[in-house]
Amino acid sequence: MILLHTPSTKETQAYIALFRAAMPQQTFITLDELDDPNQVAYVVTWGPPAGLFAGLPALRGVFALGAGVDKLLARDDLDPELPIYRLLDGGMAAQMLEYVRFGVLSYQRHMDIYRRQQADGVWKMLPPRLPADVRVGVLGLGEIGLTVARGLQADGYRVQGWSRTPRSLSGLVSHHGQAGLHALLAESDVLACVLPSTPETAGLLDAATLARLPAGAMLINAGRGDLLDEMALLAALDEGRLRCAQLDVFAQEPLPPDSRLWQHPSVTLTPHIAAITLRQQAVAQIADRLQRLVQGEAVAGQVARHRGY
Amino acid sequence: MILLHTPSTKETQAYIALFRAAMPQQTFITLDELDDPNQVAYVVTWGPPAGLFAGLPALRGVFALGAGVDKLLARDDLDPELPIYRLLDGGMAAQMLEYVRFGVLSYQRHMDIYRRQQADGVWKMLPPRLPADVRVGVLGLGEIGLTVARGLQADGYRVQGWSRTPRSLSGLVSHHGQAGLHALLAESDVLACVLPSTPETAGLLDAATLARLPAGAMLINAGRGDLLDEMALLAALDEGRLRCAQLDVFAQEPLPPDSRLWQHPSVTLTPHIAAITLRQQAVAQIADRLQRLVQGEAVAGQVARHRGY
Repeated sequence: MILLHTPSTKETQAYIALFRAAMPQQTFITLDELDDPNQVAYVVTWGPPAGLFAGLPALRGVFALGAGVDKLLARDDLDPELPIYRLLDGGMAAQMLEYVRFGVLSYQRHMDIYRRQQADGVWKMLPPRLPADVRVGVLGLGEIGLTVARGLQADGYRVQGWSRTPRSLSGLVSHHGQAGLHALLAESDVLACVLPSTPETAGLLDAATLARLPAGAMLINAGRGDLLDEMALLAALDEGRLRCAQLDVFAQEPLPPDSRLWQHPSVTLTPHIAAITLRQQAVAQIADRLQRLVQGEAVAGQVARHRGY
Repeated sequence: MILLHTPSTKETQAYIALFRAAMPQQTFITLDELDDPNQVAYVVTWGPPAGLFAGLPALRGVFALGAGVDKLLARDDLDPELPIYRLLDGGMAAQMLEYVRFGVLSYQRHMDIYRRQQADGVWKMLPPRLPADVRVGVLGLGEIGLTVARGLQADGYRVQGWSRTPRSLSGLVSHHGQAGLHALLAESDVLACVLPSTPETAGLLDAATLARLPAGAMLINAGRGDLLDEMALLAALDEGRLRCAQLDVFAQEPLPPDSRLWQHPSVTLTPHIAAITLRQQAVAQIADRLQRLVQGEAVAGQVARHRGY
């Protein structure tokens, strides 16, 4: 028996219908339909209520309906030995490329400056900048980060990547570790962060990090809010050291009404929509992995708890 | 002898230097250096002063430093038999793709709506929309329009094209003529216009045309300003029939200070920068064609006067 739960009844029902169609031989239930907790072998969820897992003694695994599992790992009701599976893609990498591409295009084509000129009634052409004139640093080289880096390369931008551990990638210069990060920062007109939240990445984008970016650079954060020191970013924008920022994730979400980010003229902010789990694609890949698990096979996407993803 | 002229002395000098390097055997001069008008065989120019061509009796051709030649054709000092050559690409098609892609991405990813939410302090996710959910109609299927259409197809959008005369293009549905235009308009969530200004296209985007777009559609005009009835667009935006517009060209440029377009919340406007002639690429292709003409060969890009491009 597989328990499905999201914070929205409507969304839960939509998922249940898709899973039942994809795996008619399995039993999928909602929390309301749960009579015997001993029957639940797997939970498929995002935003599960506190204490849910402690009451499910026969649980064999949890499927997260997202790529980031930091909130799941921070809970105290999950047996440390219990396998957690994250969403491998679910269409998120392509969405993330679109989100980052929008920011990079805006920077390259001066769209943020033209917007300000429009507000001021100023008609003034700026010197054109080609994609090859824009250096983009991508932080995070997992499935999502690689899709972003390769896509921007195809657009003609000068792309380099960074990851926690060394990666050998054909046709893409990639850095790792602290020294590698410093090298990347110094050469990034646009810094695009798609890192997960882990003990190693928390606070990575602090004042010292932002200070290493070239003057007039742009920051895109579509990873996790706790990576960024928002006060340090505001200071860098106020002082004009950074030109602009496009932010999708925040230390606190929803972003508190009193945050200065809301009204800052150099900030574009979106409500954590850079990469949304697409139901049909999520169901297809989770159903495939559930089937393999039932047949005793190995599956991809199991979270390494110590690593955080 | 080849005369080079632009409205900017600095830009003219930059062009002269590049041409002299590309064709050291030829003589390139500025208007200031012109002693004997009988020696000028070709003019390479944009924005030439009134009456310039009438004073050059030995002129064999004019190279426009741009793709649009409507202003050149409207002059009264050009012999109707004199060949005019327009810029074939000069890097403009790739720039135009970037400009249109920015608008389409903004529409698909609701970035205009999120911007308004940000101004209002509203944190609200909108349902995701995939590229395959967005139908884009491209008006104009010359070199530039085709690059735009093919590029957006590669991004995953549902693209159709329209041109004045029938085109047979593999893998791209294309329409032509008035009936074809009506069919395209009804199926375009984003209408992207990259048409040149000709007697046939002037006023094409009028109230009746805009009324045929689906409710909530977006207009991108990066062709010529005289294609669009700006008052009709403002009415459609005010009434909410169209969601937004991204405009690079205007009936009068610079856009007059009293135009309502400047401050309209649904309008993104740029100062005719969608596709700027890139000097090095322009010089390379014009030098190549000058060389062929000197050798008595045929060259591409001669404007058909009756057609307007």
